[in-house]
Amino acid sequence: MAAHERGEWLEGRNPVWEALQAGRKLKKVILAKKAHGPQLDAIIAGVQERGIPLEYWERRELDRLATTGRHQGVMALAEPLVTVTVDKLLAEARARGEEPLLLLLDGVEDPQNVGSIIRTVEVGGGHGVILPERRSAGLNATVVKASAGAANHLPVAMVKNTVRGIEELKAKGCWVIGADQAGDNLWTSTFDLNLPLCLVLGSEGKGLSRLAKEKCDLLLRIPMQGRVSSLNVSVAAGIMVYEVLRRRQQQAEQERG
Amino acid sequence: MAAHERGEWLEGRNPVWEALQAGRKLKKVILAKKAHGPQLDAIIAGVQERGIPLEYWERRELDRLATTGRHQGVMALAEPLVTVTVDKLLAEARARGEEPLLLLLDGVEDPQNVGSIIRTVEVGGGHGVILPERRSAGLNATVVKASAGAANHLPVAMVKNTVRGIEELKAKGCWVIGADQAGDNLWTSTFDLNLPLCLVLGSEGKGLSRLAKEKCDLLLRIPMQGRVSSLNVSVAAGIMVYEVLRRRQQQAEQERG
Repeated sequence: MAAHERGEWLEGRNPVWEALQAGRKLKKVILAKKAHGPQLDAIIAGVQERGIPLEYWERRELDRLATTGRHQGVMALAEPLVTVTVDKLLAEARARGEEPLLLLLDGVEDPQNVGSIIRTVEVGGGHGVILPERRSAGLNATVVKASAGAANHLPVAMVKNTVRGIEELKAKGCWVIGADQAGDNLWTSTFDLNLPLCLVLGSEGKGLSRLAKEKCDLLLRIPMQGRVSSLNVSVAAGIMVYEVLRRRQQQAEQERG
Repeated sequence: MAAHERGEWLEGRNPVWEALQAGRKLKKVILAKKAHGPQLDAIIAGVQERGIPLEYWERRELDRLATTGRHQGVMALAEPLVTVTVDKLLAEARARGEEPLLLLLDGVEDPQNVGSIIRTVEVGGGHGVILPERRSAGLNATVVKASAGAANHLPVAMVKNTVRGIEELKAKGCWVIGADQAGDNLWTSTFDLNLPLCLVLGSEGKGLSRLAKEKCDLLLRIPMQGRVSSLNVSVAAGIMVYEVLRRRQQQAEQERG
């Protein structure tokens, strides 16, 4: 049975296309008979160029194999997604000659949010996302799809748990900033954001754990005025990541004079 | 049949709780027999205080009635959500003594994104969201739930279509800013954001229509560096809304000296 082969099934045109673009190792690609379209043509060309085995199946067989609901006539069996160490993320930043900008998620279990956050960090130009082994969505097909393929480009590290992750980051020279409504105002804080940084965000319902908050070097809050008391966690992550990037760019411009 | 009563069904603890908090008119509230928990107790107290009819049903009857998948043992029949005019949104800003900050969505059909964006505008302190009648999720139960109840607090206006909406906003003194990758850099643009503003965002796949772009006073782009070429639309909306709010606050502080 194909479904039992070792690896990870990618479902849908964008995920398969992005995996090809990212040079991810694909064991085979399956197309629904009669499926067509310009993106499928591009996928077929890429698959043939790289010598990846291509199979044509009945659409209902794909329906049976798919788990995320929308295969759009194409699936691919990829080598399992590999997570890396925190050291690898820091090395990635060094290799680019940039101060690390990482994001650690504490108890964010919704794969849509985890994927969206990986996408934001990748698009913004950050260096990696860190997930704790417990109470987290992990790195699976739903997360990769929700990341619009960004999980193929951005390294993701796993740590035992949030507190140990924070301790490791601090030991390796990162400043750890937690998102918390009791923190300093993100807009007016004078903390130098052009240092090696890791932002830590908690789940929408519960926020950061008490212990995680205590371990952070600094807490920052996103100013809120409405009657609903919180932002979606992936929106909050986007606002914080982009504020760090904006300040870094501003500082770089000032230094250039 | 209950399901045919005129009104709109709210499903789940947060949506019902938020609707109560927002003072939304509820025709009745239905609880699953044996459902319990502190939030349900608070809902029951609120329902009794306001004299709203309360019914106890079997859980499987709620399962049948629910459409969003997770009723969590409580549903409420609310008066239909009312959308307002653009004038009403502008009046809302005037009443608060603030420059209008509105957000118009062009072709954003995913109710999760529409809800999340309504939530962001409400939490940030904006004055309203505008949806075109065509190619938009409209204002329904899924949107309200995805907004974490913010749609009960923030006025939402409907316009015939995006282009007519932009024309109306301009005629009424708003500056209309489209989000587009061909625009000026959001971080370095010197355009005064402390004017009556409406931001316009398109769908993730297609962006703004050509005609909508032409009608905008200004296009701004969110800086992107990664290999994945776009942000989730609700993340993009959060980054833009919060950049406007940050600059307004900064300007207010400078004026105070």
